[in-house]
Amino acid sequence: MRAERASRPRRPVVDLTDEQARRALPLKWGTVPKDVIPAWVAEMDYAVDPVVMEAVQRALADGVTGYPLEHDPALGEAYAGWAGRHFGWAPDPEAVRAVVDVTAGVRVAIEVLSGPGGVVFPTPGYNAQHGLAGITGRAEHLLELPASATTAEIDLDRLDALLAGGAQTLLLTQPHNPWGRAFTRTELEGIRDVVVRHGARVVSDEIHAPLVLPGAEHVSYLAIEGTHDHAVAVVAASKAFNIAGLRCAQLVVPDPQARKALDAEPMARNDSWSPLGVVAARAAYDHGDPWLASLVERLDEQRTLLQELLSTHLPEVRMRPLEATYLAWLDASALGHDDAAAVALERGRVMVSDGASYAPGSTGHVRLNIATSPERLTRIVERLALAWT
Amino acid sequence: MRAERASRPRRPVVDLTDEQARRALPLKWGTVPKDVIPAWVAEMDYAVDPVVMEAVQRALADGVTGYPLEHDPALGEAYAGWAGRHFGWAPDPEAVRAVVDVTAGVRVAIEVLSGPGGVVFPTPGYNAQHGLAGITGRAEHLLELPASATTAEIDLDRLDALLAGGAQTLLLTQPHNPWGRAFTRTELEGIRDVVVRHGARVVSDEIHAPLVLPGAEHVSYLAIEGTHDHAVAVVAASKAFNIAGLRCAQLVVPDPQARKALDAEPMARNDSWSPLGVVAARAAYDHGDPWLASLVERLDEQRTLLQELLSTHLPEVRMRPLEATYLAWLDASALGHDDAAAVALERGRVMVSDGASYAPGSTGHVRLNIATSPERLTRIVERLALAWT
Ligand SMILES: Cc1ncc(COP(=O)(O)O)c(C=O)c1O
Ligand SMILES: Cc1ncc(COP(=O)(O)O)c(C=O)c1O
Repeated sequence: MRAERASRPRRPVVDLTDEQARRALPLKWGTVPKDVIPAWVAEMDYAVDPVVMEAVQRALADGVTGYPLEHDPALGEAYAGWAGRHFGWAPDPEAVRAVVDVTAGVRVAIEVLSGPGGVVFPTPGYNAQHGLAGITGRAEHLLELPASATTAEIDLDRLDALLAGGAQTLLLTQPHNPWGRAFTRTELEGIRDVVVRHGARVVSDEIHAPLVLPGAEHVSYLAIEGTHDHAVAVVAASKAFNIAGLRCAQLVVPDPQARKALDAEPMARNDSWSPLGVVAARAAYDHGDPWLASLVERLDEQRTLLQELLSTHLPEVRMRPLEATYLAWLDASALGHDDAAAVALERGRVMVSDGASYAPGSTGHVRLNIATSPERLTRIVERLALAWT
Repeated sequence: MRAERASRPRRPVVDLTDEQARRALPLKWGTVPKDVIPAWVAEMDYAVDPVVMEAVQRALADGVTGYPLEHDPALGEAYAGWAGRHFGWAPDPEAVRAVVDVTAGVRVAIEVLSGPGGVVFPTPGYNAQHGLAGITGRAEHLLELPASATTAEIDLDRLDALLAGGAQTLLLTQPHNPWGRAFTRTELEGIRDVVVRHGARVVSDEIHAPLVLPGAEHVSYLAIEGTHDHAVAVVAASKAFNIAGLRCAQLVVPDPQARKALDAEPMARNDSWSPLGVVAARAAYDHGDPWLASLVERLDEQRTLLQELLSTHLPEVRMRPLEATYLAWLDASALGHDDAAAVALERGRVMVSDGASYAPGSTGHVRLNIATSPERLTRIVERLALAWT
């Protein structure tokens, strides 16, 4: 499908200059000293797709600064159309609900639909979702990926044991950050079998689905037979289109009973998304393909460049193949630093994400954001090599 | 203070045409048939202050669509400066935290800072906050204002009894929607005394503070001595400046221990506000006074016009004096309709808010939004009179 799309119309990915990036990305760029290259939080150093930007600017010019519609059917239709084109599977547009962001969507799904048992959270796992189970009043059970594993897989025996021990929800990240994996249909079927055996639920965070790279493919957990009665997916255009601050993600709820339960909740449970986020998501889904194709191509190039740079400058660093996302999980423990991220910052003037925030104790690991220019990525790895070796 | 401000520079309030309002306010205007005048949800039929709009447009042109700063000191400074100018009391800028919206701020304050006992919610109370206590896992105790009360006051004996019975939080709305009251310093001191006696907490929703009308004044609950150890306020520029969809409100947390507790929570507890909301709030607080002065003047005129229209066309309708907000609470029960809001819509083609959503059973009451043009308000009351009498 990727090959086909290559011949379709394209809009280019435009790199931000340092100065533009400092204005556009106050968190990623604005909180680090000027001599530091930021390669941490999951934002890209690229200008927003002009088609998405213009849609938001038009809405703002119309004065759309107030409350969004409580239920906007066009959002579900846009997502379903997009998912069908990209993944060959789409939910019923009726199954789509707006939420303010993906993590809020995960929270509401657990709070309203899950039993009180614990939440299984595979780690290393997205740092801002550590502690999320606790917020819902549930125990958090880490399902650890051993650093030595050749392939990053969900350990089904361990999942089985945790669900047997009383956990009732699996928080799946598909594709996975920071594992970089796009789980296969077979893997997902294996997960489903274990979950179904225990009558547990799955919340599938699929925010990175648009960022599956050539060679892999995205299969939604909901595209697996026998999942609709126990699972929801949380999806968004926000990560792929660099618009997380506009605040609209989507909850895909295939089970009509679950939809009823969610819709019956008091408004305060879920009414914080922005109308500008809805406009941006619709524009991205309806008109963003020509830009997204360029983005995936660029990230594919960055991934190849990273491999070359690592083998030249940092052959001791281990990294599993990156199948999806622009976030590389680097095992630098062979280099013997107590805190590889701190050394990268102090000596290398590169801000990477500290591995320990994804998996307690992983201080020899860092997460590296490669969604930048080839020049910056080259400087980043050269600096890491100077700092670490 | 109002009188002084009248001689200062002004920017006018600009009325939206029907067509403009349909584009700008998709919830308020877009969900009603074309022949219906919408006077329900709390949004104003006025164009956003151009100074606020331009600030947001500039940020968007810079590409600010990603994550906001985790803590932006400029937001606290802007709010504190504004509160000092308007109310003669201001928090330490350090006490201010961003939240996505006011209701989310109320929720996080209760969840993190309150004991597990119930929440006292004076009713009629803001409809979207009915059920909020339940979401936090707490019981909701309605503290009812009798329809016959001449003045809308918190019944301190009843508050005392509820707190004695195990409730541990008062959700105060100051000024109150839909009572239209701005509680006086003496009233707030009375509330404080009861709360302190029971070691309870107060969450003071002060979203309507900028909309106190001439003749009344806003006193923050936090401006009362002896409240800082047990109270937070939730404030926003969003209601006064018609920018609720941009998604940034503020939690004012004077107690350093409470701030520590909030700051120690996992990110997922509170990280959904938009950077555009921050930009808008800062612009409103720093530069919005010349527009807000015109707005308050306009709302004062609308309030006078409403009284005239009611006494001419609907003398049977009871309404307490409107001290704040643009939301009038009308008691139409003398007219004998089972559901006054439904009759207004069906026969009068006016969409008002159903009283029962503010106080269970109040079907003879409606809430009327007067933040529109004098012409529309005139038509609204004429139509209500035709429908109801
Ligand atoms: C797996 C995953 N989920 C969610 C998010 C954040 O989404 P949001 O900001 O919409 O909560 C990220 C951000 O990188 C992520 O990697
Ligand atoms: C008392 C009160 N609190 C909160 C809100 C809504 O604020 P938000 O949308 O920021 O939750 C309103 C809206 O009218 C209100 O009247």
